[in-house]
Amino acid sequence: MITVVFGFEDSMAAAERLGVLLELPTFQVETRRFPDRECLVRMPAPARTAILYRSLNDPDGKIVELLLAASAARDRGAERVILVAPYLAYMRQDRAFHPGEAVSQRVIGRLIADHFDALLTVDPHLHRIADLSEAVPGIPAISLSAAPLLASLIDRAGHPVIIGPDDESRQWTQSIAAPLGLDMLVASKERSGDRDVSLTLPEADRVRGRPAILVDDIISSGRTLIEAARLLRAAGALSVEALVTHCLATAADLALMRAEGMERISSTDSVNGPTNKACLAPRLSQALQEHGLI
Amino acid sequence: MITVVFGFEDSMAAAERLGVLLELPTFQVETRRFPDRECLVRMPAPARTAILYRSLNDPDGKIVELLLAASAARDRGAERVILVAPYLAYMRQDRAFHPGEAVSQRVIGRLIADHFDALLTVDPHLHRIADLSEAVPGIPAISLSAAPLLASLIDRAGHPVIIGPDDESRQWTQSIAAPLGLDMLVASKERSGDRDVSLTLPEADRVRGRPAILVDDIISSGRTLIEAARLLRAAGALSVEALVTHCLATAADLALMRAEGMERISSTDSVNGPTNKACLAPRLSQALQEHGLI
Repeated sequence: MITVVFGFEDSMAAAERLGVLLELPTFQVETRRFPDRECLVRMPAPARTAILYRSLNDPDGKIVELLLAASAARDRGAERVILVAPYLAYMRQDRAFHPGEAVSQRVIGRLIADHFDALLTVDPHLHRIADLSEAVPGIPAISLSAAPLLASLIDRAGHPVIIGPDDESRQWTQSIAAPLGLDMLVASKERSGDRDVSLTLPEADRVRGRPAILVDDIISSGRTLIEAARLLRAAGALSVEALVTHCLATAADLALMRAEGMERISSTDSVNGPTNKACLAPRLSQALQEHGLI
Repeated sequence: MITVVFGFEDSMAAAERLGVLLELPTFQVETRRFPDRECLVRMPAPARTAILYRSLNDPDGKIVELLLAASAARDRGAERVILVAPYLAYMRQDRAFHPGEAVSQRVIGRLIADHFDALLTVDPHLHRIADLSEAVPGIPAISLSAAPLLASLIDRAGHPVIIGPDDESRQWTQSIAAPLGLDMLVASKERSGDRDVSLTLPEADRVRGRPAILVDDIISSGRTLIEAARLLRAAGALSVEALVTHCLATAADLALMRAEGMERISSTDSVNGPTNKACLAPRLSQALQEHGLI
């Protein structure tokens, strides 16, 4: 009985990258759906410490499967079950914006705290709370920043300007631009619908004739970045590319972004996809060890 | 602040039938999905006792929405949140049939117990436990039988034979046949896959020249009933029909069942569909009152 990394069908490749770095065995949790859409989950091996590795894009089915897997791991003797969810869902709804709305950050955060002994994630989309532990109370809840990793993807040739999409991202944008000694601009954003955003970019003329690199924690539909790319093109940017932690965009969304002149879209491997350019495993591995989780 | 029935898009018609009988206001919980598939849930009205009405076919998204709705109801001041789930999911996996399997009955049962103050359901598929309270511990968990309601749909003309699909259903089948003074047969079932079952029907010749009425708690893919219908036809049954509490079959499954000679398929309205012939609202309403839940 040892420490074992468990991936799922959608996360197995990334789970194995983590397992290799940790020198731990890695197994795939078996899942299947019955005709009535209930799922059967089976842990293929016992573990004293079970690390469940899965990002929570398209979250609901994955959340139920994770609760079942955590329980099955304990039935097989696990003393600790750790959730490594590089992309963590439901962190944006941190209050009722209209009366009667569910505060899903709190509900899902507590659900995770109730069923796991620790959580490790990357750049959770926290707006109004300072610390992930407020959302996921009572267990070690560790949030890493992918900023250094994204910074390592930047080519400084041509003096690119780093662009943050909104004021909330200012500090995070700065943590990418400052160590590289690059200029930075921050847009301001107004959202009027899921796919409807309007941006303004003060001092946009500073990008004239230079490469513009948009950075963000997440691409969801990509509408914010498309709007930003238009502003940057109009301001005379030499090229526009995007660099994000989590890319949740569909193939259609990515095609649209490319059609709108985003020459390159790069992300970490938190969510599988063609934009994956940076591997989170070294940071995750280091964090698990530093925080004494394994 | 009063008692309010809340339905969802998929359960609103049935929720309203219950609301009318209870003389309670009925509202629809607002749900929407963001492009990244996270859901936003909003309770449209406050309530001191909130009755959330929803069957859990295709369960995972509904379970997450129900947890969010229960939390939002409490945020709006609810002192009690009652789940009325005529069809309750995940009750069949009540043990690990193979090492490492999650016991989903226990996990989902506890999840419901953690987030609701009471549960009302109909014919949950319990095999090896006697009482729903074992699966949903610590809250009033009430299980109704739809047998009397299904019995009321039976035409006694032609001396039909009531057929139960397997030995587990014997008592329940008897509770339909006995009060009507009808003959009864019980098949024995061996399952070799989700859609692969083999049945044997002792004393099948008793159906010769008589209508055969198959009764069951649930139609999932319908394969069991198709197999039973073949045996009954081969044994000379005059006609074959099916009568079930929960019909989860897809349109394609239903078409296949009809093509295989099942002349009529009838169910309660626990899950919306073309087979709905009996309304559960009177039984649900009575049970909520008898158990002092409202």
